[in-house]
Parts: sequence; C-alpha cells; structure tokens
Amino acid sequence: MANELPNFADVLAAAARIAPHAQVTPVLRSRSLDALVGAELHFKCENFQRVGAFKFRGACNAVWALTDDEAARGVVTHSSGNHGAALALAARTRDIRAHVVVPEGAVKSKLAAIEAYGATLHRCAPTMAARDAMAAQVQADTGARLVHPFTDPRVIAGQGTAALELLREVAALDAVFTPVGGGGLIGGTAIAVAGIAAQTRVLGAEPAGAADAYESLHRGERVTDLVPDTVCDGLRGTIGAINFDLLRRYNVEVLTVDDDETLAAMRLIWQRLKILVEPSGATVLAVLLRYRERFAGQRLGLILSGGNIDLDDLPV
Amino acid sequence: MANELPNFADVLAAAARIAPHAQVTPVLRSRSLDALVGAELHFKCENFQRVGAFKFRGACNAVWALTDDEAARGVVTHSSGNHGAALALAARTRDIRAHVVVPEGAVKSKLAAIEAYGATLHRCAPTMAARDAMAAQVQADTGARLVHPFTDPRVIAGQGTAALELLREVAALDAVFTPVGGGGLIGGTAIAVAGIAAQTRVLGAEPAGAADAYESLHRGERVTDLVPDTVCDGLRGTIGAINFDLLRRYNVEVLTVDDDETLAAMRLIWQRLKILVEPSGATVLAVLLRYRERFAGQRLGLILSGGNIDLDDLPV
Repeated sequence: MANELPNFADVLAAAARIAPHAQVTPVLRSRSLDALVGAELHFKCENFQRVGAFKFRGACNAVWALTDDEAARGVVTHSSGNHGAALALAARTRDIRAHVVVPEGAVKSKLAAIEAYGATLHRCAPTMAARDAMAAQVQADTGARLVHPFTDPRVIAGQGTAALELLREVAALDAVFTPVGGGGLIGGTAIAVAGIAAQTRVLGAEPAGAADAYESLHRGERVTDLVPDTVCDGLRGTIGAINFDLLRRYNVEVLTVDDDETLAAMRLIWQRLKILVEPSGATVLAVLLRYRERFAGQRLGLILSGGNIDLDDLPV
Repeated sequence: MANELPNFADVLAAAARIAPHAQVTPVLRSRSLDALVGAELHFKCENFQRVGAFKFRGACNAVWALTDDEAARGVVTHSSGNHGAALALAARTRDIRAHVVVPEGAVKSKLAAIEAYGATLHRCAPTMAARDAMAAQVQADTGARLVHPFTDPRVIAGQGTAALELLREVAALDAVFTPVGGGGLIGGTAIAVAGIAAQTRVLGAEPAGAADAYESLHRGERVTDLVPDTVCDGLRGTIGAINFDLLRRYNVEVLTVDDDETLAAMRLIWQRLKILVEPSGATVLAVLLRYRERFAGQRLGLILSGGNIDLDDLPV
C-alpha cells in the first residue's frame, strides 16, 4: 500500500485499533495565552502521549495493522528520535520484535530510551545510504516489516487520530495547526479534519530553516534538496511524496517561523500552561504569534506534538 | 475566628464558594514513575491551578467569605510569592482592592505578576518587623482585611479543597502526601481526608533544611527558631500555631528530604509527566523515593503544589 493515500476511514480504523494502547490526551486552555494571541486557543497535548509524542499513534497503528504472520517477523525502522521509541513501545504492546537502525553518534539518552522499550539497536554510519542499507539488511535477515516514520500510510492514518480526538472534544474550530516535518502529522490531520469538520482549515507550522514543505507548495513540486538548519530536531525531515500529495489534496497552508520565535513560544507554553513541550511542538504557537492579526477572534486548535526535551541541557 | 480550627464543613463550604473561580485540576498518572516507586501514584496537579499553585484556593475562599461591607474595604497580605499573586487574582474575581506588602529586594518577575493581577504593592524593609508594621499601616489606612498565607482558617479550608477533589476522583487511597511549609495545605488536606476517607493517612514532605514541622512534632511543641536553608522557596515558612494543632489533631506524619533528592524528583516529574513543577512541589515524590519500601504496593495521592519556576534561570 506504499503509494495509496490513506483516507478518513483509515483514520477511524486507526482510532479503534490504537484505543487499547494509546492515551486520549487532554486539551488545555490558558486565559493569558488567549489574551496574548487575541484568539481562543485549544491545545491538544500530545506531549502527554505515550513515549511523550504523537508518534506513538502512528507506530501503534502500523504495528496492530499487521497480520499475525507479518507481526511474527517483527518491525524495523530508522529513527533515533521519537518514532524509534514509539515503534519500540508499539511492538512491545503486541509482544513482537522491533529493530531500530541508528546512526553512530546519535544522542545516548534517546538510544537508551529505545533500548529500554525492548528494541534491538543496529548501528550504522551516519549517512542515508548506510542507513537504508542497514535497514534492508535487517529486513532480509529477519523478514521484519519496514515502518517508515512518515510516509507509511498507516502511520499517517494513526497520526490523524490526534485531530480526531480534538475535533470530537472541541466543536466548530476555525482552524487546526500542527508542526510540519516529514508530513505524517499534518497529513493525517488534514484527512481527519476533512472527514469530520470540512469547514475547519488546516495549517502547518514549519521552521524557516527547514521550510521544504513551504517551498514545495509554493513551487508546486516537492523540494528535496534543502539542508535543514533549525533547533526543532523533530522537524528536520524532508516532506514525503505521499505527504506532499495530501497537503495539496486538502489545501493545507504552511506558515514559517524563525527559531527565536519558536523558542520564545516554547517558554510561554512552559510558563503559562505549566507543561513541557519540545521546540518542534512550540512552532504552532509561534506562527500564531507571528500572524496574530490574521487569526484574531478565531477558535483555534493547536497540536502540541511532543515534550521530549533533554533535561541534561538544563541546569536543574 | 483567628484561633478556631476549621473543620470539614468549612472545606465543603470553601469548595462551593470557589467553584465558579478555581480550576478542578487534573490527576495524572505515569506508568514509569509507578514502576520506579513500586506503588500506584496519583498526582493532583495544582501547578495547573490559577496563578500556578494551590494558593489560589485558599485566597479565593478568604476573599469570597467576606461580607460585602468587609469586601468593600479590600484585603491585604505580606507575601511576594504565590500567595501574594493568588490573593491579587482572588480579589480581582470579586472586583475588590488587594494590597500586597513586599520586601525590598523581592524577585522582580514575581512582583510584576502580582501587579499584573491588579494589586497595589507596598514596599518595606526586608525584616519581619517592617513587614508587620507596613501591613498594620495598610489595614489602619484602608480597613483592608488581613489574609495570612497559612494561619487564616478560611485559607486553610480553601487549601483542603484540592484533597477533596482528589479523594472524590480516586477512591481508596492508602495515603495522601503534601509538601509542608507554613502548614496551610497539609492542614486543609488533613481535614478533608478525615472527613471523606478516614482510613487514608496524611503525610507531609518537608525539606531537611526547613524541618520545623518535623521537629515540632517530635518535640511536642512548636519550634519557631529554625533558620531555613532550602531551594524550596515555597516551604521556608515556619509552621503556624493553628497549623501545628491540626497536624497533631489529625495525626499527620512529616517526613523530610534533602534538596538534592527533591531536585532529582523534580527532574523525574518534568521528564515523565511532562509538566512543570517547582522544587517545593517535588518534595512529595522525593519522600516516596526515599521511603520506597515503606509504601510499596500502596495506592497513593500526591499533591503537586505548584509550577512557578523562574525560566530566566534556565537556558531556554
């Protein structure tokens, strides 16, 4: 099903499939942030999702969509970030093997988290070619199914369940904002929103230093040669082909923000909502602060994608 | 009513009185923290309360318990911390004046917060005598009612509403833990727990560097001459007389922890629950980690008292 676009039925199926395993995350509000932006903000807190990010939704859907025979051979991915941890935990919920290909030099604490969830690490040189070769090798050796972090249709459908929950809890939103990296979350969100609240717009927030989705939409073709430069480590991926198709089909608009705006927005979220979000997650508030007048008085949903900050970087 | 002990009826009345203004805060759980402590932990998140701390409950109850004539003359307190901000906001919910006496040299960001809630600041020299003199002066000039941060019975009753909510949401707790400073929260908690779940124990967590409540219980009389030395800025106050009476009447036990244990517990809460708590609030998890074997397998409630961290201390 590699090139099939997932649809609303897939999102609904994903919601049913992951319900026994995933959290229904809370939607938080803040009077002071509403006042600051001049709009009514509803924050969908995926930092409270298992493994601390929405990524668990997609990984869990992919794992539980496998047949028993497929599942018996395990799953494999290449991600030393949230998707790697998410797939490891998702595999554990089904009691199957997960293999995670990680580049030499990846952050130790993240690797430790992936191993703690029971996955097998496979180290490779830090190049795309070495990574793909290692993943192919693992597939050949074990028969494991590759679960790509954002182009897998079942992953995309799973990510859409966050917006589904948000829209069922908060009616009549004018727009829903999500961060944009490889496009799994925004793609799934666009499908879910179109299915349940067609009048609600979907907007993406992308770091100016990794604005390949923004550029792709403006040029009308996928831009794959940008070199990302952003503190948002979750948003450095290049928009996938299937994801780009979804952005266009659902008329998604992408807005960009600078990293200093994103970090200021992150501080605001920490201070006012008393929750930890990672920089990637704060982009959605950052774009609203930048384009405040455009959204004044509207009722808006913001998906806070994750909360995995390395506290070793902080003096606490 | 300065020396009357508040009772369960007062807590119930407080709950009704503050309901239109205060948040019903969520109770969070964490599989990984349960595993780490070896018990079932229910975190009552008062960091999500208005002004970021449980203090709003007591201040709000005190403000709304005034007669209209009393209210018209305003309220006054001496606290540059969470209680000052809480009283300022509580007064604003009733559209009355709040005066806050603050010592020269108090943290600017905290004073700005108190002023932003509309209170009038009165600066004085940083001594207890100057503070009391200034508060008396304000009372004489304006007729404002003094609302003490932790010895006021209505403040104590208001603080008890956090435990009331917790016990109504989570049945059959073996024990409830709160931080101990001046004793407003633990006192109100003891009353609420005795009223609704008499078999549930109440325990206090106190920094070893400010262990006046612990010492007082051991000596059988109130110790008022300890000089506090702790990072827990919310817990430096000396246990009040009425608060000490409540601890004894309700057979509350106080356990102590070192600051390094508290800071480690704070990091764990940030990482695992993805929420911001201030050091004072983390003492409750710190005592559980220290006395793990004693509470193994139990079902425990922990009141996370607040989340007001000065982010200027962090490099984000």
